[in-house]
Amino acid sequence: MKRLSMFVIFAILASLAFSQQRQIINIPNIPGYVTLKGDFHMHTVFSDGSVWPTIRVYEAWRDGLDVISITDHINYRWSFLTDHINLNNHNTPFNEAKVLADRLGITLIKGVEINRGNPTGHINVLFAKDLNSLAKDELFFALKEARKQGAYIQWNHPGYGQKKGDEQFFEIHKILLEQNLLDGIEIYNHHTFFPETVSWAKEYDLVITGSSDVHLLVDMIHDKEYHRPMTLIFAKENSDEAIQEAVMSGRTAVYFENTIVGRKNHLEQLFHKAVSFQNPPMIVENKKRYVQFHNNSDVDFELECIQCQAGMKMPQEMKFPANSVSLQTIVMNSDSLIYQAESINAKYRVKNLQTISGEDIVTEFEFVNEGTPKVLKYKKKPYPKVNY
Amino acid sequence: MKRLSMFVIFAILASLAFSQQRQIINIPNIPGYVTLKGDFHMHTVFSDGSVWPTIRVYEAWRDGLDVISITDHINYRWSFLTDHINLNNHNTPFNEAKVLADRLGITLIKGVEINRGNPTGHINVLFAKDLNSLAKDELFFALKEARKQGAYIQWNHPGYGQKKGDEQFFEIHKILLEQNLLDGIEIYNHHTFFPETVSWAKEYDLVITGSSDVHLLVDMIHDKEYHRPMTLIFAKENSDEAIQEAVMSGRTAVYFENTIVGRKNHLEQLFHKAVSFQNPPMIVENKKRYVQFHNNSDVDFELECIQCQAGMKMPQEMKFPANSVSLQTIVMNSDSLIYQAESINAKYRVKNLQTISGEDIVTEFEFVNEGTPKVLKYKKKPYPKVNY
Amino acid sequence: MKRLSMFVIFAILASLAFSQQRQIINIPNIPGYVTLKGDFHMHTVFSDGSVWPTIRVYEAWRDGLDVISITDHINYRWSFLTDHINLNNHNTPFNEAKVLADRLGITLIKGVEINRGNPTGHINVLFAKDLNSLAKDELFFALKEARKQGAYIQWNHPGYGQKKGDEQFFEIHKILLEQNLLDGIEIYNHHTFFPETVSWAKEYDLVITGSSDVHLLVDMIHDKEYHRPMTLIFAKENSDEAIQEAVMSGRTAVYFENTIVGRKNHLEQLFHKAVSFQNPPMIVENKKRYVQFHNNSDVDFELECIQCQAGMKMPQEMKFPANSVSLQTIVMNSDSLIYQAESINAKYRVKNLQTISGEDIVTEFEFVNEGTPKVLKYKKKPYPKVNY
Amino acid sequence: MKRLSMFVIFAILASLAFSQQRQIINIPNIPGYVTLKGDFHMHTVFSDGSVWPTIRVYEAWRDGLDVISITDHINYRWSFLTDHINLNNHNTPFNEAKVLADRLGITLIKGVEINRGNPTGHINVLFAKDLNSLAKDELFFALKEARKQGAYIQWNHPGYGQKKGDEQFFEIHKILLEQNLLDGIEIYNHHTFFPETVSWAKEYDLVITGSSDVHLLVDMIHDKEYHRPMTLIFAKENSDEAIQEAVMSGRTAVYFENTIVGRKNHLEQLFHKAVSFQNPPMIVENKKRYVQFHNNSDVDFELECIQCQAGMKMPQEMKFPANSVSLQTIVMNSDSLIYQAESINAKYRVKNLQTISGEDIVTEFEFVNEGTPKVLKYKKKPYPKVNY
Repeated sequence: MKRLSMFVIFAILASLAFSQQRQIINIPNIPGYVTLKGDFHMHTVFSDGSVWPTIRVYEAWRDGLDVISITDHINYRWSFLTDHINLNNHNTPFNEAKVLADRLGITLIKGVEINRGNPTGHINVLFAKDLNSLAKDELFFALKEARKQGAYIQWNHPGYGQKKGDEQFFEIHKILLEQNLLDGIEIYNHHTFFPETVSWAKEYDLVITGSSDVHLLVDMIHDKEYHRPMTLIFAKENSDEAIQEAVMSGRTAVYFENTIVGRKNHLEQLFHKAVSFQNPPMIVENKKRYVQFHNNSDVDFELECIQCQAGMKMPQEMKFPANSVSLQTIVMNSDSLIYQAESINAKYRVKNLQTISGEDIVTEFEFVNEGTPKVLKYKKKPYPKVNY
Repeated sequence: MKRLSMFVIFAILASLAFSQQRQIINIPNIPGYVTLKGDFHMHTVFSDGSVWPTIRVYEAWRDGLDVISITDHINYRWSFLTDHINLNNHNTPFNEAKVLADRLGITLIKGVEINRGNPTGHINVLFAKDLNSLAKDELFFALKEARKQGAYIQWNHPGYGQKKGDEQFFEIHKILLEQNLLDGIEIYNHHTFFPETVSWAKEYDLVITGSSDVHLLVDMIHDKEYHRPMTLIFAKENSDEAIQEAVMSGRTAVYFENTIVGRKNHLEQLFHKAVSFQNPPMIVENKKRYVQFHNNSDVDFELECIQCQAGMKMPQEMKFPANSVSLQTIVMNSDSLIYQAESINAKYRVKNLQTISGEDIVTEFEFVNEGTPKVLKYKKKPYPKVNY
Repeated sequence: MKRLSMFVIFAILASLAFSQQRQIINIPNIPGYVTLKGDFHMHTVFSDGSVWPTIRVYEAWRDGLDVISITDHINYRWSFLTDHINLNNHNTPFNEAKVLADRLGITLIKGVEINRGNPTGHINVLFAKDLNSLAKDELFFALKEARKQGAYIQWNHPGYGQKKGDEQFFEIHKILLEQNLLDGIEIYNHHTFFPETVSWAKEYDLVITGSSDVHLLVDMIHDKEYHRPMTLIFAKENSDEAIQEAVMSGRTAVYFENTIVGRKNHLEQLFHKAVSFQNPPMIVENKKRYVQFHNNSDVDFELECIQCQAGMKMPQEMKFPANSVSLQTIVMNSDSLIYQAESINAKYRVKNLQTISGEDIVTEFEFVNEGTPKVLKYKKKPYPKVNY
Repeated sequence: MKRLSMFVIFAILASLAFSQQRQIINIPNIPGYVTLKGDFHMHTVFSDGSVWPTIRVYEAWRDGLDVISITDHINYRWSFLTDHINLNNHNTPFNEAKVLADRLGITLIKGVEINRGNPTGHINVLFAKDLNSLAKDELFFALKEARKQGAYIQWNHPGYGQKKGDEQFFEIHKILLEQNLLDGIEIYNHHTFFPETVSWAKEYDLVITGSSDVHLLVDMIHDKEYHRPMTLIFAKENSDEAIQEAVMSGRTAVYFENTIVGRKNHLEQLFHKAVSFQNPPMIVENKKRYVQFHNNSDVDFELECIQCQAGMKMPQEMKFPANSVSLQTIVMNSDSLIYQAESINAKYRVKNLQTISGEDIVTEFEFVNEGTPKVLKYKKKPYPKVNY
């Protein structure tokens, strides 16, 4: 039997590549940072996944991600492979994927998943230097080693494998925290959101991530109408070091279905970069006022009024569809007000942006009559105290 | 390291399955046969592919195929695996895929690809009983064994690896034919059509197939606007035996992009089952005549007039979009003809149905005036002499 | 100024038509009837709409409808037109649309909308012979005349123009009923469903319809993800008379968003024609059972278990996506049961089929073990007592 | 019969508007100008169209246009309306549409179409002050008046109504030119491109436009896969005056299907704003070089190599799909070259950008080896002499 060089498959990918295209995920950068899209939890044939590591890189490229980590289980492999292979190098999945990742510009983070029974659960270690040194019987020693390497340590899918209604932040996780052996928590996994984990992230000041945990194919995970679940990373640049710095500093958010969970200041900045007014800002037409909002992102924003001005009928709910302009109408209740309203004010809550702190993302609109008969001028307020 | 049962991955697939759906490929059956959709050429990690065999079954199920064959190379494997595994059982890819295939109702055909240098090229053996017995140094002996097992033998992608402009049916293939060791030819592979092979199929009476030859993921092969390339099999039922009987009898066609290549009688029957008139068949309105065509299939049919009646202006080209009704207009040239035309006749060639024999698929329309002021009645002619 | 024949615009339509296509709405027929798709409420420039009547016919053809009625207001017109035109013929919108409707095979029903203030509201009269004779000051006399012509009389959008929370079947509507001057009620209008009207339909035995009430363009009414709202008519054939007979007999249902409201027997029959099993019906694999459902319609069916067998874990919810096959999994709780279960039974409620009577649409599955090791056979029960 | 205020329909539109969205057409601005999207040729019920003028404004808003002109025929009307209405004010369509246009932010240009028989054909007058003053029997006098008002004068769809193969710039058009009564020519109308008109635009220095000439609905004109045909205007801002200045100065281009026709400098600038490199610019991997192109526009660019460097195999054709990143591969022919190539150069022609002058739009790539082992640096050249 002939040995076939690994480059055969790369050659095939190259030959195909001309017909391939990478999707662009349109989420704006925020001041001071680029908004990277990542998935830090996935498997290959080197544990219980069904694809070679290169496929994970290709999927990430196709789907518009910037950074991934292949996190095969350190504890077990498929019976078929373990029967035949002495797979004692846990860095192999990373090494197998690295050439293609470099070629396609995907940042590849070295990672691994360590499995324990309940209540401990599964732990991801990211940004480690050598995964083999983490293959220890005792979790405590494995994580000590991870910490020594400067790695990030995370409790995965805390909602799985525990009795329903019994989700809790267990004794063991509190100990890990006290020992400085836990940095973050996975609040979304595969196609499940664990709402209680967000309050734990607040209480224990944990970094949050969301991931596909894909074993088969990415396109088998999510509904066709949605993107794949991902972690947004607000990093100084797209590099291993900058991503590690951002994750360790908690500058992450989780984007799943049509929701983003994150820190208040990041979500406010995202929204303000994504949504703008069309000019002129407000058209006056008898008893009606019209405003158009331009949403320059892939997120469909959904707002509800939490403080609407008296004397006029404002929309109770507003939708700003992705990459579109939407028209909103305000109806003045009484003729007497038509030429008298010096300004129009309203506060809306962005329903699909959820903060770790539990606070609402609120956007405040103020339009001021400057005497022209047809247009109310939008009055910009100093950012960030007032959102617009 | 713990051994993980193979059923772990099946359990994962099952848990995902609720959110998964299988596409229905809408190509009609023809009289006496069901029209099955198949792909008889693909690879996995057991040769130079990048996925576990189960992924090939899943992809087939998702894409609406009925039958596949995993045809890993008998000659070589990836260096990584061959370094570590003694993969001496060529039936393993089949065995690994069989449980999932049975569960999902995908008919799985045992197959293998045997590679030789030019001009011999690559040979697929399908419907063999034992693939290990085909691992012989001498191609001749391998194919003799395949024939003994009742297998189907095919020359793959004859357009590859030969000098451009030098495509030919070589001496070696003629010898294989004489020795009764060659049944068919692959006229479409990956995303390339080899037009010259169709004339070889005619000259040497070869069975035709078309396939993905996928090594990475199926969705990396074809343009998003098209389905994956496939072989249509006109079989007595969906079973191994019936599919083998159909293939060995040459009841196949190849469906790629928006074209189907096949035998004349099969393509005629497909077209007649797919396209029908809306009632009433032809509306008379002064100098105009209107007909609506209902295309009840996934194929966009494209027709051109090859014999249009004098005295009226018929559409030179007609498109019948998939799963839609289209409206066609005929304009009578002169008023004197309006109430005189006893009948309207036309012959159209279906441009995207290509026969092995080179003959056109022609559909003939005849509408007869039966005295009602508003409708010309469609006159059905005995099938198949006249197409409608 | 030259007078331009009306046929100019028809000629333009004809010249365009070759590039146009009609969507096919895939809702199955039920035993004894064809399932026609209709919209019985819409406006044109002849009252307060914005398009010429021919546009309504084109939209219906494009959207796959079989029958429409243009129901311009008998009471008022746009100021522009009424300033300039003596529009005293209420049959004009029908007449203007008729030629194109005949050409395209759209059945056109003569109709009109009569507006009164609250609580009477708006009344549609369909299948009238002469609309001018209905232009009477007194509603009672107008409807008497409509009844004399054999027309169908309906209360439109009963949820509009009445105080929220105060929706009711008013005195005036009871009187109309007693006088045999009210046949039906519009339960869906534009993009609003009026749930209380379904109970009125039950209480007073009213025919139900749903419609676009379009004034501008149809594509401005409904979310892109949904079809336009429509009335399904279970008619003996597609003709004016058969449609009138079906509507007057109450053989209608209303299809909006992903919901169908109708009579129990019609909805049961629709579901049974739309959904079937893939063969073989149930795969046995250790503790798992797998079934595939083929949904051959445009409706995404959503089911929930209302009586699931003990000793196994059945899906609590099932989705059968439109025009697709879906896979469902049953897990046996205990090994002891695996080879003992003689049969598997379950009852599921179809959540998005709502009956006028308030009864659930329930589908019952029974699979019987007939001794083969791999397949549980589906046991067909006599229809309609047991649904499958 | 009651008179209904025109505001009734506006109120309906407003109530609907919340569910409506405006598409964003992603064509970049060029240095010094905003790229506006316009359609300067369309009809309503005020001549031989089928919709009220407000519908044209709504369609434009929905489709992402910035500016339109309703150009009803000055010569004729539908027989129905002319029978009943004394429509002697040709400014009425403009006036009817103006309120909605102001509300939605659509710039509305006053325009009209003047029809003559062959060879003169149809003439559009845009940016006129008073359309009634153009209703003259003698074309010459009408255009003199248009010129006096500072209007733009254009020959419409020059390919229609003339014998096939006999398209020419007639005597009459040369006279109009000499008399300074012709500014531009419509090179695309409805769904037809007139290639010969581009050479006339070059020869006679004419402004070019492209338009829908819609009579029915915009969505009936174009294939679903394409946008509606449009004129791009490179204007100093979005206002009547700035658009008029841009059109009169010839700063227009025509965007139809996937092609843009325009002046060389505008098209070069469009392409350079739309396409950029992904960082790092070129990956070196043994004999292969990889580059990714980011196309940040709605246009699918198609390139072909016109000067490819010897000693390596560059793609003969490249596609940069809209709003995507694409990967291109270069293969070095011989190992000896791998570390020797100091730089890589190539010239590609952009096939779907067509200049009026007939010159190619050529983009030149140069990548320079700066000693890093993995990356060839892209060498930016001074714009616009060298394109990148």
